[in-house]
Amino acid sequence: MMRQVALDDTLAIAIGAGILGTGGGGSTYLNRLRLNNELRQGERSVPVIRADDVPDDALVCAVGGMGAPTVSNEKLQEGQEIKRAVRALEEHLRQKVYAIVIGEIGGGNALGPMITALQCGTPVVDGDGMGRAFPELDMDTFMIYGAAPAPFALADAHGNVVIFERIGSAKQAEAFARSLTIEMGGSAGLVMPLMTGAELKATVIRHTLSLAKRIGEAVLDCRARSIEPSATVAELCNGVVLFSGKIIDVDRRTVQGFARGKLVISAFDDFNRKLEIDFQNENLVARSAGQVICTVPDLITLVTLEDGEPIGTESLRYGLRVAVLGLPAPKELKTPEALTVVGPRAFGYDVDFRPLPGDLL
Amino acid sequence: MMRQVALDDTLAIAIGAGILGTGGGGSTYLNRLRLNNELRQGERSVPVIRADDVPDDALVCAVGGMGAPTVSNEKLQEGQEIKRAVRALEEHLRQKVYAIVIGEIGGGNALGPMITALQCGTPVVDGDGMGRAFPELDMDTFMIYGAAPAPFALADAHGNVVIFERIGSAKQAEAFARSLTIEMGGSAGLVMPLMTGAELKATVIRHTLSLAKRIGEAVLDCRARSIEPSATVAELCNGVVLFSGKIIDVDRRTVQGFARGKLVISAFDDFNRKLEIDFQNENLVARSAGQVICTVPDLITLVTLEDGEPIGTESLRYGLRVAVLGLPAPKELKTPEALTVVGPRAFGYDVDFRPLPGDLL
Repeated sequence: MMRQVALDDTLAIAIGAGILGTGGGGSTYLNRLRLNNELRQGERSVPVIRADDVPDDALVCAVGGMGAPTVSNEKLQEGQEIKRAVRALEEHLRQKVYAIVIGEIGGGNALGPMITALQCGTPVVDGDGMGRAFPELDMDTFMIYGAAPAPFALADAHGNVVIFERIGSAKQAEAFARSLTIEMGGSAGLVMPLMTGAELKATVIRHTLSLAKRIGEAVLDCRARSIEPSATVAELCNGVVLFSGKIIDVDRRTVQGFARGKLVISAFDDFNRKLEIDFQNENLVARSAGQVICTVPDLITLVTLEDGEPIGTESLRYGLRVAVLGLPAPKELKTPEALTVVGPRAFGYDVDFRPLPGDLL
Repeated sequence: MMRQVALDDTLAIAIGAGILGTGGGGSTYLNRLRLNNELRQGERSVPVIRADDVPDDALVCAVGGMGAPTVSNEKLQEGQEIKRAVRALEEHLRQKVYAIVIGEIGGGNALGPMITALQCGTPVVDGDGMGRAFPELDMDTFMIYGAAPAPFALADAHGNVVIFERIGSAKQAEAFARSLTIEMGGSAGLVMPLMTGAELKATVIRHTLSLAKRIGEAVLDCRARSIEPSATVAELCNGVVLFSGKIIDVDRRTVQGFARGKLVISAFDDFNRKLEIDFQNENLVARSAGQVICTVPDLITLVTLEDGEPIGTESLRYGLRVAVLGLPAPKELKTPEALTVVGPRAFGYDVDFRPLPGDLL
């Protein structure tokens, strides 16, 4: 059982979170640098607690970065914006936050909350609301299973903090926060949702921080032994290697606050055997020879072939040699309620979700 | 001195506010119906106080509608949104609001605050922050002369309330609130700024509610005596009738949350003698024969020729017979600080402000 995150752990967690990020969730590189920097101050570590250790009436909040990864890689955080938003909500509600929750375990958003936890002097919960990354803030198990969308807060690098005090629905929260994130320059810090310990326990996907660390450790172990890591990672996550090959085309635009596009990978042994992937911050649908072979909410992740380094959709480029992993989603994302929000039709694809066998956890 | 607003007063105030609105500030028709309805409940009246009657340490807030008048005429208010935003701010600050302030005396925004005052059980202050209407929320004397831009609140017809807790500048507040207003459907209720009594007294343009009533009473008196009201109104406001004629062209679009465009009026006696007016919610620049003859912050107002009814930029249409009034701005809008924010260059016109002689008040 994981009790803390120390400087030695951040590389493994960053790799694992990147793999769970399915192309999105923001850069682990930048947030890992920031987390390491924070951990080095006074030789600290981040206390990690289980969701079940949070008292039912305690206040917790999920935090993360909002915006397109293409933007947040270049428009750096100021560093204190999420803490500032947490403090504003505490002041607004006259209640202290007991623990910080990871909003999405995928990508840099796995690491950011630990920075906030250190800054706020609270532990972080081993778990998250997605078990991966998703592009919209209504797409987490907290919202899907009934947490209140408001109050929540958005903050930017210039010290601006906005509290959404009464909001009708998670979809509405997403629309307002997205529009303001764009006005804030395309990336912002988000504190959402606020929950009681009881609400957290009813909705969180447990142990995903531990999972990210295990995945990263497996990758590092393969690297040390000069083994291509993709099959090992797939096995660890109950998944499969969907494809291996070279990226031969990337069409990507930053539109309405998202990095949207399509990529094509061609097999090494047969140029005409191809895999096409549609993405919207995250990889969403993989097709081969016109057939859909894997869709959201199952995880479609690109890693570099040689060393298993996860590749964000903002870093896709011609010529990269990659393995494509297909990992089954956590069971919490595969209920009928969840599929309405995070199934392929929720993203505008007229295909049914045909799950990979098994569950991520 | 004005002590209250009763049902009998609202027609005169609506006409006067429409004339001070210079084409913007929203429909007086709709807000007058709403105000009358509120006044009829229990035969009430709105208590009116002078700015100088507000204790220095009391909390006051300006309120108004935000958005394009083309939108707010069709997308009706729910009715309680501004009260809801006031209550949210009171709760946030743990302090009751002592009085409601009219954010802009021009157009329907003169009447809305009286509805809020009745709903909140507070008086309204005789004065405002513009002495007219302006398109952006940083364009008032409160902001120009140093009131804090945050916290402020925005609310919509669906019960959503957003508190802007920390905001760097009035310009930033405008950008965030505009973007969210558009996401809210193009119109929203605004509570901004919050001020102490001392701040109010240092920045408000006094007695503009009384002025609106006097202007309206003068128009009604002319109507009763079958006199064209334009010259009387111009004289009452130290202004002039710039032009009389028929609207022969209107080019209007609703872009980025504003009603923007241009209109052309042709003289009755000479079709080729024309007045052109550029507007952005409000009328901003009047030109004749290529010469600029009146610019913002001086007031350029269209009224119907026969009965002096003010014409909003959302109601402009071919064939209307109009008089164009040029009224000098209040002195508070003509300082160097103010002209940086509300002079013609602030709206993108490369012309100097050449003030009409005199002051509105």
